[in-house]
Amino acid sequence: MIYVGIIGFGVVGSGVAEVIAMNAQKIERHLGQELSVKRILDIRKFDNHPFSDRMTVDPDVFFGDEDISIVVEAVGGVGIAYDYTVRALSSGRTVVTSNKELVSTHGVELMQLSVRCGCSYLFEASVGGGIPIIRPLHRCLAANRIMTITGILNGTTNYILSRMAESEIDFDHALLRAKEKGYAEQDPSTDIEGVDTQRKIAILSSIAMNGAYVDPKEIHTEGISSIGVIDIEYARALGHKIKLLAIFENPNDREARILVAPHLVSSDDPLAVADGVYNAIFVYGNALGGAMFYGKGAGKYATASAVVGDILDGALHRGRNAHITPWYYAETRVVSPFEDKQVKALIRVSGRPDIETIARYFPGTTVDAVPFINEKESAFIVGKEGVLTERELQKAVSNLSGFISKIRIYTSER
Amino acid sequence: MIYVGIIGFGVVGSGVAEVIAMNAQKIERHLGQELSVKRILDIRKFDNHPFSDRMTVDPDVFFGDEDISIVVEAVGGVGIAYDYTVRALSSGRTVVTSNKELVSTHGVELMQLSVRCGCSYLFEASVGGGIPIIRPLHRCLAANRIMTITGILNGTTNYILSRMAESEIDFDHALLRAKEKGYAEQDPSTDIEGVDTQRKIAILSSIAMNGAYVDPKEIHTEGISSIGVIDIEYARALGHKIKLLAIFENPNDREARILVAPHLVSSDDPLAVADGVYNAIFVYGNALGGAMFYGKGAGKYATASAVVGDILDGALHRGRNAHITPWYYAETRVVSPFEDKQVKALIRVSGRPDIETIARYFPGTTVDAVPFINEKESAFIVGKEGVLTERELQKAVSNLSGFISKIRIYTSER
Repeated sequence: MIYVGIIGFGVVGSGVAEVIAMNAQKIERHLGQELSVKRILDIRKFDNHPFSDRMTVDPDVFFGDEDISIVVEAVGGVGIAYDYTVRALSSGRTVVTSNKELVSTHGVELMQLSVRCGCSYLFEASVGGGIPIIRPLHRCLAANRIMTITGILNGTTNYILSRMAESEIDFDHALLRAKEKGYAEQDPSTDIEGVDTQRKIAILSSIAMNGAYVDPKEIHTEGISSIGVIDIEYARALGHKIKLLAIFENPNDREARILVAPHLVSSDDPLAVADGVYNAIFVYGNALGGAMFYGKGAGKYATASAVVGDILDGALHRGRNAHITPWYYAETRVVSPFEDKQVKALIRVSGRPDIETIARYFPGTTVDAVPFINEKESAFIVGKEGVLTERELQKAVSNLSGFISKIRIYTSER
Repeated sequence: MIYVGIIGFGVVGSGVAEVIAMNAQKIERHLGQELSVKRILDIRKFDNHPFSDRMTVDPDVFFGDEDISIVVEAVGGVGIAYDYTVRALSSGRTVVTSNKELVSTHGVELMQLSVRCGCSYLFEASVGGGIPIIRPLHRCLAANRIMTITGILNGTTNYILSRMAESEIDFDHALLRAKEKGYAEQDPSTDIEGVDTQRKIAILSSIAMNGAYVDPKEIHTEGISSIGVIDIEYARALGHKIKLLAIFENPNDREARILVAPHLVSSDDPLAVADGVYNAIFVYGNALGGAMFYGKGAGKYATASAVVGDILDGALHRGRNAHITPWYYAETRVVSPFEDKQVKALIRVSGRPDIETIARYFPGTTVDAVPFINEKESAFIVGKEGVLTERELQKAVSNLSGFISKIRIYTSER
């Protein structure tokens, strides 16, 4: 019998307990023995709950239980979740989590601690919800240099953008719908400002860089709150969709360029298949070529599916590390200045400037006019041919009279 | 230093040697030590080849090398490949392969032998080429009951069907193009008759059934050679594409219904994203919900990517089994009679029979007329509502005067 302890009995914690109960037979066959939730630590009391007999509010009772060999951290945040994780790993217990904030902030210490203590720190559920991506990227693609990763990693923002496109409603109304549906939190800023996506691409980037830690705060990040109905109309007219993309590029195997920002994505692109709360992650490896992982990026049972998958891996590697290459702080710079990245963008300008006027601001690259959406403004695609860096784009639009907005255009890596 | 031996120096075997050389640094970082190809066994001699120094035609020299702890079987087929695999596993060496025929035929014996000998039999590359699917299905989704798997698993047939649709050419011309491109073999029957797909879905099904062996020969299989230009035209008119699908359904967790046959797939379906030589595999787990894996399903380096990924897993689990649940022969029936499966189909009939005439053959289900493509024939969709089993469909069309063809319609499981 393998005993699990769960810290935090919210959506994820209760989902884990329910999936272990629901699929007990399948799990036992896979593991060769039973898996059981022995204790649940939460500051709240749950009376008359099917799991009440296992609940405790006392960390010492929880950690004092020698039967528990695997701990699920489902608290969230980087405060007490960090303390509990350190305590569990230090006692030789494998810790499994979906806590992307903690992994992307303290992953180095926690993974190194797990190796020293002969256990594992596993976090498949931290990116893509139930979609297998951490282990495929780390294990199945281990023979590859990972050249690019492009992901739609946040269900809330993707739902909002999909609703805006389908129902022709503005951002605020789409956000309201997302809240009604339970797809957005009361304070949705972490999602809509791109912070959640930033943490997730930092985790994937660290894996793709063979464990060299990528600090989320170094990632240039733009959210979706400035996207308006007119942007959506331009996207449709051009045969594109607007998606909040996280992009990792590592052409020289030293410094990566990483970006989180809304992009125009061609409707023909495999990534465009991910509408609503779905996620999609496209990975390009130098041996593999391209592969994409797609599915629901969040949800109680989807997340629990990934957490319990990790529990089983931890159980099978009991008494030793489950071969997760521990992250480390690199001595040299890992993330390149984003300003050097080559870009392509749709820019919107008020009035009817002619193409030559615009082209003067963009030497060395092409400017193409886009059919008008209304009489008040014009739009142009810049950077289709020639080289346009992000720095040049920023400089050009800061000088451009009547400039309204820019949105980058994704170039597929298939 | 971990030493690898490769048996068979064709496309896959040489790809493996090249990927190990190309990505040596990445591999060493992952493994914590170097990985090196020590010997290559092939009946042919390769003079003046970069790897000539490691070549041997003598199996005793190859197997006598005590340094080699991991063997890549890249011979193919079920003859000598089986003998070499048994010999390698019996000596405690992990064997890695892309040989779907051998895995789907003798997987039970070979996996059980590997467990007894403290090594592993790994075959990520046998399905989906470089796309991670075996390990994600077996490991990451281990907490799920796998309810359905739907896959486009064969690049050759998918290329042919895509070419027919894009270039409006018939089957024979599309096959010729596939041969010119190197996407079809000189004798393409294993691919176009669905046998390759049958083997691959048998492997995925055995994993989804927790190791209960699924014999490919029990899977109802239809190829694509009867698909004509008119079928493609109907598909387009209905907003669908024709795809050779492998479908596994296991609603009751006892007996699965498995089928390989061409289907109409809605252009909106995530699976429809896989055109040309691309593969896509949609998995539905009872906790996860749906997830899809997409990428190039074949090719020298893509396949080598998966093989070398398995080599690394084998190396990290040296001296023990890498936790692949060994398959077994179940005492009760594992595959249900296919005739009980509920289906929906497009049927083509010569002339202009009215809908009532057709409906008489399909009691208990709906018959919908489809707009005519030409003056010689009509088409109807049967089974949209109500229950139509495969048995009833077969019986109805065998009695139907002027019956031309049927093609099943895929219902998405999202």
